[in-house]
Amino acid sequence: MRPPQWIPAWLLLLHGCATALLPKAADSRTDIRDCSTDPPYLPPTATDTTARVAALRGAMRALGVQAYVVPATDAHMSEYISARDARLGWLTGFTGSAGTGVVTQDKAALWTDSRYWTQAERQLDCNWELQRTTWIESIGMWILEAVPVGGNISLDPFLFSIDTWNSYRQALQGSGRVLLPIDTNLVDQVWGDQRPAAASSEIYSLPEEFTGSSWQEKVARIRQEMEQHMRHPTAVLLSGLEETAWLFNLRGNDIPYNPVFYSYTLLTNTSIRLFVGERRLAPAARSSLRAACPGPLCVELHEYEEAPAHLRQYVQGNVTVWLGTEYTTYGLYSLIPQEKLLEDSYSPVMLAKAVKNTREQDLLRAAHVRDAVAVIQYLLWLEKTVPRGEVDEFSGAQRMDALRQAQEHSCGPSFQSISASGLNAALAHYSPSNRSSRQLSVDEMYLADTGGQYLDGTTDITRTVHWGTPTPFQKEAYTRVLMGNIDLSRLVFPPNTAGRVIESFARRPLWDVGLNYGHGTGHGIGNFLSVHEWPVGFQSNNVPLTAGMFTSIEPGYYQDGEFGIRIEDVALVVEAQTEHQSGEKPFLTFEVVSLVPYDRNLIDISLLSPEQVRYLNTYYESIRARVGQELQRQQLQEEYDWLQRSTEPFPLGSAAAATATSTTGTLALTMLLSALLPGLQA
Amino acid sequence: MRPPQWIPAWLLLLHGCATALLPKAADSRTDIRDCSTDPPYLPPTATDTTARVAALRGAMRALGVQAYVVPATDAHMSEYISARDARLGWLTGFTGSAGTGVVTQDKAALWTDSRYWTQAERQLDCNWELQRTTWIESIGMWILEAVPVGGNISLDPFLFSIDTWNSYRQALQGSGRVLLPIDTNLVDQVWGDQRPAAASSEIYSLPEEFTGSSWQEKVARIRQEMEQHMRHPTAVLLSGLEETAWLFNLRGNDIPYNPVFYSYTLLTNTSIRLFVGERRLAPAARSSLRAACPGPLCVELHEYEEAPAHLRQYVQGNVTVWLGTEYTTYGLYSLIPQEKLLEDSYSPVMLAKAVKNTREQDLLRAAHVRDAVAVIQYLLWLEKTVPRGEVDEFSGAQRMDALRQAQEHSCGPSFQSISASGLNAALAHYSPSNRSSRQLSVDEMYLADTGGQYLDGTTDITRTVHWGTPTPFQKEAYTRVLMGNIDLSRLVFPPNTAGRVIESFARRPLWDVGLNYGHGTGHGIGNFLSVHEWPVGFQSNNVPLTAGMFTSIEPGYYQDGEFGIRIEDVALVVEAQTEHQSGEKPFLTFEVVSLVPYDRNLIDISLLSPEQVRYLNTYYESIRARVGQELQRQQLQEEYDWLQRSTEPFPLGSAAAATATSTTGTLALTMLLSALLPGLQA
Repeated sequence: MRPPQWIPAWLLLLHGCATALLPKAADSRTDIRDCSTDPPYLPPTATDTTARVAALRGAMRALGVQAYVVPATDAHMSEYISARDARLGWLTGFTGSAGTGVVTQDKAALWTDSRYWTQAERQLDCNWELQRTTWIESIGMWILEAVPVGGNISLDPFLFSIDTWNSYRQALQGSGRVLLPIDTNLVDQVWGDQRPAAASSEIYSLPEEFTGSSWQEKVARIRQEMEQHMRHPTAVLLSGLEETAWLFNLRGNDIPYNPVFYSYTLLTNTSIRLFVGERRLAPAARSSLRAACPGPLCVELHEYEEAPAHLRQYVQGNVTVWLGTEYTTYGLYSLIPQEKLLEDSYSPVMLAKAVKNTREQDLLRAAHVRDAVAVIQYLLWLEKTVPRGEVDEFSGAQRMDALRQAQEHSCGPSFQSISASGLNAALAHYSPSNRSSRQLSVDEMYLADTGGQYLDGTTDITRTVHWGTPTPFQKEAYTRVLMGNIDLSRLVFPPNTAGRVIESFARRPLWDVGLNYGHGTGHGIGNFLSVHEWPVGFQSNNVPLTAGMFTSIEPGYYQDGEFGIRIEDVALVVEAQTEHQSGEKPFLTFEVVSLVPYDRNLIDISLLSPEQVRYLNTYYESIRARVGQELQRQQLQEEYDWLQRSTEPFPLGSAAAATATSTTGTLALTMLLSALLPGLQA
Repeated sequence: MRPPQWIPAWLLLLHGCATALLPKAADSRTDIRDCSTDPPYLPPTATDTTARVAALRGAMRALGVQAYVVPATDAHMSEYISARDARLGWLTGFTGSAGTGVVTQDKAALWTDSRYWTQAERQLDCNWELQRTTWIESIGMWILEAVPVGGNISLDPFLFSIDTWNSYRQALQGSGRVLLPIDTNLVDQVWGDQRPAAASSEIYSLPEEFTGSSWQEKVARIRQEMEQHMRHPTAVLLSGLEETAWLFNLRGNDIPYNPVFYSYTLLTNTSIRLFVGERRLAPAARSSLRAACPGPLCVELHEYEEAPAHLRQYVQGNVTVWLGTEYTTYGLYSLIPQEKLLEDSYSPVMLAKAVKNTREQDLLRAAHVRDAVAVIQYLLWLEKTVPRGEVDEFSGAQRMDALRQAQEHSCGPSFQSISASGLNAALAHYSPSNRSSRQLSVDEMYLADTGGQYLDGTTDITRTVHWGTPTPFQKEAYTRVLMGNIDLSRLVFPPNTAGRVIESFARRPLWDVGLNYGHGTGHGIGNFLSVHEWPVGFQSNNVPLTAGMFTSIEPGYYQDGEFGIRIEDVALVVEAQTEHQSGEKPFLTFEVVSLVPYDRNLIDISLLSPEQVRYLNTYYESIRARVGQELQRQQLQEEYDWLQRSTEPFPLGSAAAATATSTTGTLALTMLLSALLPGLQA
């Protein structure tokens, strides 16, 4: 099961609930708004939604709908959505990325998680109750109170995942209310011509030098999997935008941060239907797709909107359609008769994409070397400018973006930069704005979680630094986060191991002293695709780790109201060299491809085991070898010198000595000394 | 989801498939039987099932059934079953604990896992194909080939879990075959008066000194949970035999090894119905249950067979029935209308039973002290008799059982002893018999996995020993298994952590050198109840760990055809003392309550970290304190001396020195010496 749709899955804590998201303060909280006065008090940031809500209610009445549910997602379960899909934002005024709205004839409510409570209070007007929880059960209970028996609860089935649909169905089961899908989206209907236009920018082929294999090879491979499958599916249906982009080596600009485009694909054993709109394709892309027409490697181009109709027609035949339920909406899913359906959590394309071939691995490695250059430039720049009081969170983030942009093959940031100083970093997902931005200071810790899109790869890295004197607790916490990062990075594990069962190694050094963090430990990442690429990672619904997968490793620690630490690297799953071999396949481990040193000012080396120090020194050697060379190539001498300083090997002695403290190792030394000293004194 | 019903869940490997159970040799294997000759060759151990199968086919024809599925379980999803429930064994001749049989008019097949292939070949006659796999999909495909469209596939719905039923339904979905439940069990029908009689032995109350709370307190607590539940269930239905036994503090002898009795309970907010047969209750038990009649704490006694009828009648009313799906058969489940059903994986009784109160904890601790005495007596006896060639696996197991039996409050073994020497121990679940039993030898490793039932608790412990000179690899493997046991036992972790996400700590020392083991890492255990007590443990379907739960911790290593190692202790989840505290609840750790030292002959202390040595020494101190006293009380001086020798603290020096090897720690010492020595020499 995916987590509730409006929480980015990788953010969720793996152990029970996400403590960071726990609505523990929900009861005692006072709303910024005061809707009890006349007129109500609303902050100036609130949006007047009276007309919009009234229009929606009109549309609902016309169709006999008592409650209408509006999600924050698009029809492809995308993590980032375009303005045209921001229905919830338009209807409610709330622009957070996660939430659900429900409107009845006399009530309206928005559900969102604790990251967004303050933002919601600032943006909602008094048409909206704010519900400070995220579980569908709670939405269901609210609906049951608001809608009498016999009432219709409606939603657009093309905006809900199968799981979410089933959760609503379950919540309303046996209640006498009807869950009624309506294909016409009622928000779109009342939004009318104010709604942003459909994407029309060009869709282009990724240059061959940046692809792992041709789209024809990818299609052939998927068809082979179809043939070899026990159930002999005749078609694969692709709904995830990354899936189509990857399969055809196409990219676009329809969505922020992710270079994808609105599309569906129906790949059958004899035909290929791409639903995207022919006029959007760059001429070269169009030629590549149409070169083998007619024939089994001819891509038929259809309008984006025609996908459901084609699917409906296709399933009339003696066919079996293979799909991944995690990225397919209930709307499409319900078009396929159950006996013609072959469902897995992830489509074969999603799974193929997750394992990078050696060419793709090399591309991603290369992108990380140039990305490291930009991050190192940024860290050095901060070192020089922060003490002068010249940087705030926002200008820092801008600088980081600009430095990346200057690197070869750059295509902008891969997500909105998290640039957080002091207590702001304790909010795991804080992003600064021009209006509210804290000045960086030598007296505070600073956390930068940033990433870039390059034609050869997507990057994502977090470094936490302190330019002054950290407190002993800050230093301990940072070192323990680092130890966790190291312990997971250097872990050797059997093939077919699920990330979920090894991610605790990243937490153990914190657990040892009663600390923890409230988010996931990592997520997959693409070759110039998504920065959070499923189904790779350490969550319960991730697939087992396989050589060729890339995942982030990102433990952290957050001290409410004080500071936040996260140390994030991207790592490639590789085969391990082990003393023994059991089983048919070699064991696995990680090769870290993010190549930026950690802040020495925050490391208490005495806490590290000799193995951890040895690992760290080896990692630093590889940074020197790979990034040092690139810095020289780019003639960045000052950065080169900084890198040399920052990657000086740590003495093993201090760690070993620390390990021996209060052991008979020390005792033996003391005894030896007392045995020898008399001789000396004699 | 539970694993396929016929594999004891705790045996399953957590990472992907159970390598120990992988049918990798299935294709290349030659059957011991030769059914191609006339007459066929069959080993003398095969059972002639021709008449039985023919009789079943007759019963099937009479009901228009084309395929009949026979499971190995009973109506309570029990791990061990009585002879009366051994339907599969009677029908097929195969007496293994795990399997499924399917009979059609012209074919019959048995599915079982690799542990049982040889046994099945020895016991089946040529009426039966042996299918060397365990997945329901494979059974489904076999059925689809054997049964034409329109045919009926039947089974007894009171012998299949809800999950298993759904798996069959899914396997046959859209195939045109009908999955037809028949309440009359056809095997029982043809078994007739040859079938063993229903259990009739006495059911008795556990003496008050051995209970954690009165049955009335337990009932009140469950009723309180019902009241407080959002859905306000009016009744709890109990199908698991442990559940009823625990709730009423009753015990019986209906099933081998587990002191339970055939029963169901329907606990409503105003009444208590126990389906067990009044005449089976000991007078004191009956009085205790009937003391408050009539009234809400009056236990109404009904015949065991009447449970379905009562349930059917009860759900006519305005009621909600709460049940745990893991222990309820599809037969009972399907009697309850969906809207009157409140389903969780485990009933509230199962969850209450899983967390032992302080009284129950003390009882279990005390049982483990006496159990340790018996195991120590056994280990010392082996040390003396094995070199004389006087012990084999079977006589060893008998000795162990006898030593336990002599301890106070003993009620026999808690499972069939695993007593395995040399290569036999590489089969994780080998049990010796009188006919085939390997002699114990100073040249081989020996593994004993045994446990006892005592009125105050159930025990389960594995020790592996070598009385001669182990190979370096055996020593390394043993030490790494021990390191895994220690690392998990001493782990500090947050409240609400699932066992699944921490069990890798028990594997890591093996993983480091490319080794692993193919079974789970532990399971819950009861107070004079089941030795494998769900839902506690380290599997994916176990509930999060909570203070008061007991679980085994049992990493191992198995070298095919050579030797097997397992080190198993039972541990109590307790609150940890941590330097910091984050969150509202304290972090957790384990207190190991099995109190038997490990084999020093097999420990390579240089592999252990100082922390591991320190932990081991502390554990040995607690063995000395608690078991030493009991040995003296029992006047077992020789065993007391053995215990002192076996629990000598390990020098921290060797571990610390080993850690320092090839570190500058050693270097510093060398430098110090060379600085001092000239002074000495001068």
